[in-house]
Amino acid sequence: MAVYTHLGAEDLADLIAHYDVGNLVSAKGIAEGVSNSNWLIETDRARYILTMYERRIELDDLPFFLGLLDHLSAAGCPVPRTIHDREGRAWRILDGKAIALIEFLPGVSVDRPTPGQAYAVGAALAELHRASADYPGSRANDLRPRDWQSLLDRCGGDLGSIDPHLPALTARHMPDLLEQWPNDLPETVIHADLFPDNVLMLGDRVGGLIDFYFACRDFAAYDVAVTHAAWSFDKAGSRYREDVGSALMAGYERARPLSSAERAALPLLARGAAMRFVATRAFDWLDTPEDALVTRKDPMDFARRLEFYAEAGDAPFAPKA
Amino acid sequence: MAVYTHLGAEDLADLIAHYDVGNLVSAKGIAEGVSNSNWLIETDRARYILTMYERRIELDDLPFFLGLLDHLSAAGCPVPRTIHDREGRAWRILDGKAIALIEFLPGVSVDRPTPGQAYAVGAALAELHRASADYPGSRANDLRPRDWQSLLDRCGGDLGSIDPHLPALTARHMPDLLEQWPNDLPETVIHADLFPDNVLMLGDRVGGLIDFYFACRDFAAYDVAVTHAAWSFDKAGSRYREDVGSALMAGYERARPLSSAERAALPLLARGAAMRFVATRAFDWLDTPEDALVTRKDPMDFARRLEFYAEAGDAPFAPKA
Repeated sequence: MAVYTHLGAEDLADLIAHYDVGNLVSAKGIAEGVSNSNWLIETDRARYILTMYERRIELDDLPFFLGLLDHLSAAGCPVPRTIHDREGRAWRILDGKAIALIEFLPGVSVDRPTPGQAYAVGAALAELHRASADYPGSRANDLRPRDWQSLLDRCGGDLGSIDPHLPALTARHMPDLLEQWPNDLPETVIHADLFPDNVLMLGDRVGGLIDFYFACRDFAAYDVAVTHAAWSFDKAGSRYREDVGSALMAGYERARPLSSAERAALPLLARGAAMRFVATRAFDWLDTPEDALVTRKDPMDFARRLEFYAEAGDAPFAPKA
Repeated sequence: MAVYTHLGAEDLADLIAHYDVGNLVSAKGIAEGVSNSNWLIETDRARYILTMYERRIELDDLPFFLGLLDHLSAAGCPVPRTIHDREGRAWRILDGKAIALIEFLPGVSVDRPTPGQAYAVGAALAELHRASADYPGSRANDLRPRDWQSLLDRCGGDLGSIDPHLPALTARHMPDLLEQWPNDLPETVIHADLFPDNVLMLGDRVGGLIDFYFACRDFAAYDVAVTHAAWSFDKAGSRYREDVGSALMAGYERARPLSSAERAALPLLARGAAMRFVATRAFDWLDTPEDALVTRKDPMDFARRLEFYAEAGDAPFAPKA
């Protein structure tokens, strides 16, 4: 959550001149993105987000991510368009780093979603899944069950230093996830990380879905499970908010009803969604110095969600009477 | 340069409701300020900067800083107004920390000022000095020559670890600065830190002067010296940009001609201005871990300026024929 690169007025004005967006009026480095630097740019015409890809992201994936924004936006999803430069390019290289200019969308991320907001987010996710189905780009999910196992293996004996219950918890669930993970559910391009941080709300309305840098082709129902896990609990994952979880599912099914196979898979997918964040957070936890300015996210917030899903079975996903 | 505190939509909306500024539409944490967290807030009426004072600043000084913004803004200076809450308060307390809402001003900070920009900044500084003369608030400068000496003393033997020339340089100049520092030049409220970072430019026009958290009562001519040192060199301080330095002085003197005593003092004040940043940067350099995300500022950038001023004498400040 920082701006890693300094860009002064002259650099920014030179850059903006490559786009048909008017003249630079204001630019503020914004504290969003873990591996990117971002600026909120204002010209005499409109506002934009300028992203500089600092690391981690593969340049090879940029056409997939930026093209997806255009595809979804053209289909009416509340997703920022990519602004193409005067030569039609979706990104440019500046000082050896890729940069892209995207539309600015209004809205604010909520901490404690209401059922009305969760309903709207469920519906927006379903519409995203419908609209992305015919997106021609392809990118495999590199965070599937065997990848979680491999991250956990790399944590090794240190896993218990995060929390003494963590090794047993992962050992109890990983075999099911590896063996029972479905292979025949409907696929589409999924967001895969639709936390409240990545949704800009205007009251009960979704103003924008952002940060598609985990987007990939995978089961639509897995994305439902990720979103359910991300929205329907207090932050620590100690309390399931049934009204929020139900509203999210109802909103989703209004726009894209689940098949019986998808519904049947959801309890396992939800355990998997929770495990995915346990695994990446545990790995990052051990990989990040305690005094780093980057806030470490507690893997136990998702260990508690995993335990909830394991006990709750299909109750959170059963259709309401 | 980070946002140290998380504020979600609900916190922000609750906060904004205490002000008569409309409804929250967007909020982005911005990467400005070393010891504050800042958000660019948009409502359905206008934009604002929300500042949360995280540390270092004394709550006792807030009325001075925030009142100064109002005083200067009322006098026509391009300074953001403080937005007062519905009860008339210039700041509020949130989670034990002071917060203030100030006007958003457009403009972008330049890296390589042109003479035209330097002229405009000189004139804006002079107008600030005129306008602040009758500001009733008082705050002493806590970074005067004896304070630089005390910071350098605290660096002790480690000073040479930054650069082997640094101990001799400070030993050569500090006695003059301590003994010859003037005591009878015209005083006003000065900005004391008017680097290009703290000026929002719209082309050749000054759109905003910001970040008054070093403002204090001191010699107007010392502020001229600080601003001259901050604007008239390349970043490393290796090259004096005579055209920029002259334009800055000309812009200043158009709006507030210097007295002969002020002009005579400027060579010493400029050495002092450079030493002030050598001292604080050296102290911060030794105090900041090498791998911290905060960028350490190199004290040698100002050691080179100090050497320039010591050699140049009154040439940079002599009136043009």
